Amino acid sequence: MTYETLSCEIDDDGVATLTLSRPDALNAFDLTMARELEQFFAVDAHDDAIRAIVVTGEGRAFCAGMDLSAEGNVFGLDESLSPTPEEFRASYDQAPYDDGIRDTGGKVTLAIHALPKPVIAAINGPAVGIGATMTLAMDIRMASEKARIGFVFGRLGIVPEACSSWFLPRIVGIQQALEWVYSAEILTAEQALAGRLVRSVHAPDELVAAAQELARTFVVDRSLVALGLAKRLIHRNGAAAHPLEAHLTDSLAMYWTSVGDGKEGVAAFREKRAPRFTGRASELPAIE
Amino acid sequence: MTYETLSCEIDDDGVATLTLSRPDALNAFDLTMARELEQFFAVDAHDDAIRAIVVTGEGRAFCAGMDLSAEGNVFGLDESLSPTPEEFRASYDQAPYDDGIRDTGGKVTLAIHALPKPVIAAINGPAVGIGATMTLAMDIRMASEKARIGFVFGRLGIVPEACSSWFLPRIVGIQQALEWVYSAEILTAEQALAGRLVRSVHAPDELVAAAQELARTFVVDRSLVALGLAKRLIHRNGAAAHPLEAHLTDSLAMYWTSVGDGKEGVAAFREKRAPRFTGRASELPAIE
Amino acid sequence: MTYETLSCEIDDDGVATLTLSRPDALNAFDLTMARELEQFFAVDAHDDAIRAIVVTGEGRAFCAGMDLSAEGNVFGLDESLSPTPEEFRASYDQAPYDDGIRDTGGKVTLAIHALPKPVIAAINGPAVGIGATMTLAMDIRMASEKARIGFVFGRLGIVPEACSSWFLPRIVGIQQALEWVYSAEILTAEQALAGRLVRSVHAPDELVAAAQELARTFVVDRSLVALGLAKRLIHRNGAAAHPLEAHLTDSLAMYWTSVGDGKEGVAAFREKRAPRFTGRASELPAIE
Repeated sequence: MTYETLSCEIDDDGVATLTLSRPDALNAFDLTMARELEQFFAVDAHDDAIRAIVVTGEGRAFCAGMDLSAEGNVFGLDESLSPTPEEFRASYDQAPYDDGIRDTGGKVTLAIHALPKPVIAAINGPAVGIGATMTLAMDIRMASEKARIGFVFGRLGIVPEACSSWFLPRIVGIQQALEWVYSAEILTAEQALAGRLVRSVHAPDELVAAAQELARTFVVDRSLVALGLAKRLIHRNGAAAHPLEAHLTDSLAMYWTSVGDGKEGVAAFREKRAPRFTGRASELPAIE
Repeated sequence: MTYETLSCEIDDDGVATLTLSRPDALNAFDLTMARELEQFFAVDAHDDAIRAIVVTGEGRAFCAGMDLSAEGNVFGLDESLSPTPEEFRASYDQAPYDDGIRDTGGKVTLAIHALPKPVIAAINGPAVGIGATMTLAMDIRMASEKARIGFVFGRLGIVPEACSSWFLPRIVGIQQALEWVYSAEILTAEQALAGRLVRSVHAPDELVAAAQELARTFVVDRSLVALGLAKRLIHRNGAAAHPLEAHLTDSLAMYWTSVGDGKEGVAAFREKRAPRFTGRASELPAIE
Repeated sequence: MTYETLSCEIDDDGVATLTLSRPDALNAFDLTMARELEQFFAVDAHDDAIRAIVVTGEGRAFCAGMDLSAEGNVFGLDESLSPTPEEFRASYDQAPYDDGIRDTGGKVTLAIHALPKPVIAAINGPAVGIGATMTLAMDIRMASEKARIGFVFGRLGIVPEACSSWFLPRIVGIQQALEWVYSAEILTAEQALAGRLVRSVHAPDELVAAAQELARTFVVDRSLVALGLAKRLIHRNGAAAHPLEAHLTDSLAMYWTSVGDGKEGVAAFREKRAPRFTGRASELPAIE
């Protein structure tokens, strides 16, 4: 795992700290970072050595957004394709539109969403545009007092992307989501906390350690199978039409874990000792 | 745009203020007001001259609810039809049931929901029954200290209507929604704020100006195409089953805006000047 | 209605108080209690004599969770079946898997969810595991200062069940839901209140009376048809993809009530007297 725009360290408890590392550009999101983030979350982070992930930024920013100083098509879209909306939909899953027409940020957030492990954003400074929306696909957001968060798309004439219209109302409710997107204002850490976008606010030099500590409580002596299934159940069923759909997936997941890590968990509970779970996150049953 | 029960003024920034105007009846909602509100939101407000809308009430009330003093069938439903539930469903989209059987308030809130422009409720006084539920389809609710809001349907033996069962849990969560509907109590502005139904509480003589000022920040120097698409994305994808559905519509909307107002937005950003967006809200691609 | 693990009293206003009664085992949830809770909510509580329900626990606990001290398969699942995930799905609705493979807690919460009457949890002490998740299907949660609530599944190597992945994000938002499930910590009443899981916190000896009083305000002089339909509308449409779906069910429910209890409600309002509703909760139209 070597990257141009990222660095990653894994501690003894399996907590990986992924750092966005283009500090001279305030960690702005360019097409290289997009590719590397997708590679990390869709492939590399599935390694069982990684049990939870903290994401932060090098230097004074978290991520200043799409790198608008780049040459050419900053959004990574191929304008020569010019599909009509009907053609767009008809061809959505087919080459050659795939690379030229898909929202770049969304490829990253879908990979974060699909990873069955806890992901915590440690927002250390400015997080703007895709720098803000990428954190929405993470499970928990913690902020430094110096964090500044902005859904600034309206100022640029573009829309909130990266599946943020799916995540944001589920985190803060629809009224708050609409106001922040309409206003395109930069929020302070305190405003983000009051609106329930971030879980907690920390002194700048304590943020990353606090996020790592929280991640550790999630995974030490815990079943990574149970944890990964829980993430999938909550994302899936929190958006399902009827609790019967939850009952189907719950039953599958309960059955699966009751003959797996659940046996050890119950035994450890009865014997008043710490459990020794052996299930692997890379071997979850599909919950679709 | 002349109405019997409404008045509308548009300022130089395109912020329309729509006033419910039956002050002698506390702006009670009768069938004329229902028709006129539907005409306004479904047709008239789509004019590009209107960029955002503030809705308030004339006199001391916002809207006292369905006008129960009216003669005949106050709910506007045709009792002679008497469909069974099965017939009801089978015939829902067919004449002659359309006018006789469709919830009147819902025709209005669906029109508000479908309008791709910011709509702000400035709740200046009592807002009861349909007077409360019509505001749920608006994007943001601001209240006067004199606002009183009641989902009082249970006292009358009827159900919360106007699609309020879709909107209310998305704004305040399901526990708060159920309690307010079960209790049918009249809420003070402070209670509504604590429950996150309203965004903010204002002195009575400052409410409408504050709502207009907020609306102005949404639309001045902003892309109305981006704004309208953002509203549709958040409403649609906040209720979608999977973020992949958001990714499809995001990609379409990002592509559309990146070859449109987004070009001007990026150019203005690079040139450190205000953008001059030319996209029209009346020409959005369909996001369905 | 006689039970081994439950007791039920109904007051003159039709408010039933259901008490989990295995105090020597901290009201731990065993397979007998599971069967009796399903019987109560799916069958017995549909009696029109019951208008609202308060659920609490005998002694110092609400419910200490699945009874892990039981002999044999504590989860009530039949390990000899060993279906693959594909077989699991294919056979889900067929015997013999029904009893052996379905999540036990989910059978109870689906019955609570389907009951068209207000249900209030009065959480008097520890509510852990299924003791916590069963309350999520109830409409409102009130807590004693001594309540302790834990989604502790991760410690046992199993997943949050009982359709909790459907309910919890709708009550507290997805960020809070994920943190509580990941951390598996025991929450105090104050933490649960701050996270909006419980509606209010009460002195221990005032909790049940406060819950009964709230239930009474929901049902005295109220239309039980309107109340039951409102519960179904909010649960159904709060999870529906588009407000048009709400409009269809609203229209049906408004039509139904406007020719039923709504007539009496409007007449009583005009005559400034208390209404005398005659509709029965056992005769609601289907809202599906």
